[in-house]
Amino acid sequence: MILTVTLNTALDITYHVRALRPHTTHRVTDVVERPGGKGVNVARVLAALGHEVTVTGFAGGGTGRTVRDGLTATPRVTDALVPVTGATRRTVAVVDERSGDTTQLNEPGPTISPAEWRAFQEAYEDLLRPASAVALCGSLPPGVPVGAYAGLVRTARAANVPVLLDTSGEPLRRGIAARPDIVKPNADELAELTGSHDPLRATQDARRRGARAVVASLGPDGLLALTPEGRWRTSLPTPLRGNPSGAGDAAVAGLLSALTEHLPWPARLTRATALSAAAVHAATAGEFEWPTYEELLDRVAVTADATAA
Amino acid sequence: MILTVTLNTALDITYHVRALRPHTTHRVTDVVERPGGKGVNVARVLAALGHEVTVTGFAGGGTGRTVRDGLTATPRVTDALVPVTGATRRTVAVVDERSGDTTQLNEPGPTISPAEWRAFQEAYEDLLRPASAVALCGSLPPGVPVGAYAGLVRTARAANVPVLLDTSGEPLRRGIAARPDIVKPNADELAELTGSHDPLRATQDARRRGARAVVASLGPDGLLALTPEGRWRTSLPTPLRGNPSGAGDAAVAGLLSALTEHLPWPARLTRATALSAAAVHAATAGEFEWPTYEELLDRVAVTADATAA
Repeated sequence: MILTVTLNTALDITYHVRALRPHTTHRVTDVVERPGGKGVNVARVLAALGHEVTVTGFAGGGTGRTVRDGLTATPRVTDALVPVTGATRRTVAVVDERSGDTTQLNEPGPTISPAEWRAFQEAYEDLLRPASAVALCGSLPPGVPVGAYAGLVRTARAANVPVLLDTSGEPLRRGIAARPDIVKPNADELAELTGSHDPLRATQDARRRGARAVVASLGPDGLLALTPEGRWRTSLPTPLRGNPSGAGDAAVAGLLSALTEHLPWPARLTRATALSAAAVHAATAGEFEWPTYEELLDRVAVTADATAA
Repeated sequence: MILTVTLNTALDITYHVRALRPHTTHRVTDVVERPGGKGVNVARVLAALGHEVTVTGFAGGGTGRTVRDGLTATPRVTDALVPVTGATRRTVAVVDERSGDTTQLNEPGPTISPAEWRAFQEAYEDLLRPASAVALCGSLPPGVPVGAYAGLVRTARAANVPVLLDTSGEPLRRGIAARPDIVKPNADELAELTGSHDPLRATQDARRRGARAVVASLGPDGLLALTPEGRWRTSLPTPLRGNPSGAGDAAVAGLLSALTEHLPWPARLTRATALSAAAVHAATAGEFEWPTYEELLDRVAVTADATAA
């Protein structure tokens, strides 16, 4: 079983409107809702790849019940969210059918009490025992201490469970110092962490801060990985057009999936790159297309770099 | 007990954002949610005035549970919503804090099955027995026949319960022919019904179509009422600034409240006008301010017109 942690789960709602005009009233023509938050998206991709996945984090209120119902209805996904008093946040994506552009409205999320945070940490320790890997994903809701991920990384390492961290800002800075097995920042997150806009230099700096491996997702420039086994870059023959939201989560799922199958790093990076591109190509944000994924597996170029990281 | 019917109940959500910019991502700074739909708003005002109110209509899904929890928490309001498979719709009001303007996104609502519509009609007949008056409010969700209100008006009349109808378009056209005691169209609804943009002419036409009394809400021009007891106009010395959404629902509550207290028409219209203006003046759409209401009660002018309607 692979465990994913999403402390700030969400009910992701997508509205289609004919044309978004501020300060007017719109009839929504199409409503889609599904469980969201980065770790939940990672879990969905892992389950689609055939893995058993357990989802933990927090859920509360009517929105939390809807998230849990959605997870329960997903094959190979087990809901282990910890109940809280506050309501799970909503994110609303308003798609303008005329232009195709999306306007995003993100609620901040419920405030987690100290008792709820303690209850989560206990549940997390129990869930780690049967886990073959764990991913810690996304932002922290109000009330959770900024050093939360550092503690969760240490608990995973003490339990001998490989741990991947995918977050940003101060939670990333603190979490990386606790020596996670993998961090997967994007270019913006790397620059914020290290102050450098040079991807190679920033990735090297991130690794020196404590991560055993750093896999930087550089959008159309593919992945840059600095690992104990070596240094690689991945690329695709032609960049794919589409919606980049969810590409990072698909990459995380690819890394974890291949890690639990004990594949060497180049194979892990191939899978992550193909999944990421297949997610960009998908019609729905956060999904990925199987045919695109399988086709791309043969087309990903992984270039080794002899220079030690 | 006063009964209010809201076939298309809603979970009304209000978001505050610093400034709404289409095609960008917004962090919502403040989230407020509450049960909505016109009949629910009417019930809230009636309960604030001290009446026992029962709310019926449909509720389903996670949003429906949140609506029911909200109603249960409101003093003097009884939840008698009929459960349905589909999820209660959301309405999202996005308030731009910079300009104060609101952008509205309204979901269409769940499709009601024939069996659910039959279950509602049975529940409605039972709820009418202890009712002193009933208000039929708002739009019809998909699946409910367009002649729904005509049937509900006839059932109320057969049960000798005074019935007020507040809807628009074809449901109003059909409903008014079933001879409700009161209809409360606004200027746009009257024009759509009668083809006339002259309020007096349109109100007379509406009355000829079957309503015993027509109370037209004309925004800052007050109310125009054609009743079996006579014809009146109401006005305020100075128009109030504010949010007009909810003013019509407050007027309906005022009319019903005074009707069940057996007040004569001029007193009913005074109460409806004062409540309506107090709702416009309130900080939150759909609420009303007690001090404004009490102060305005003495300042509403009701002008009788000797001409028979």
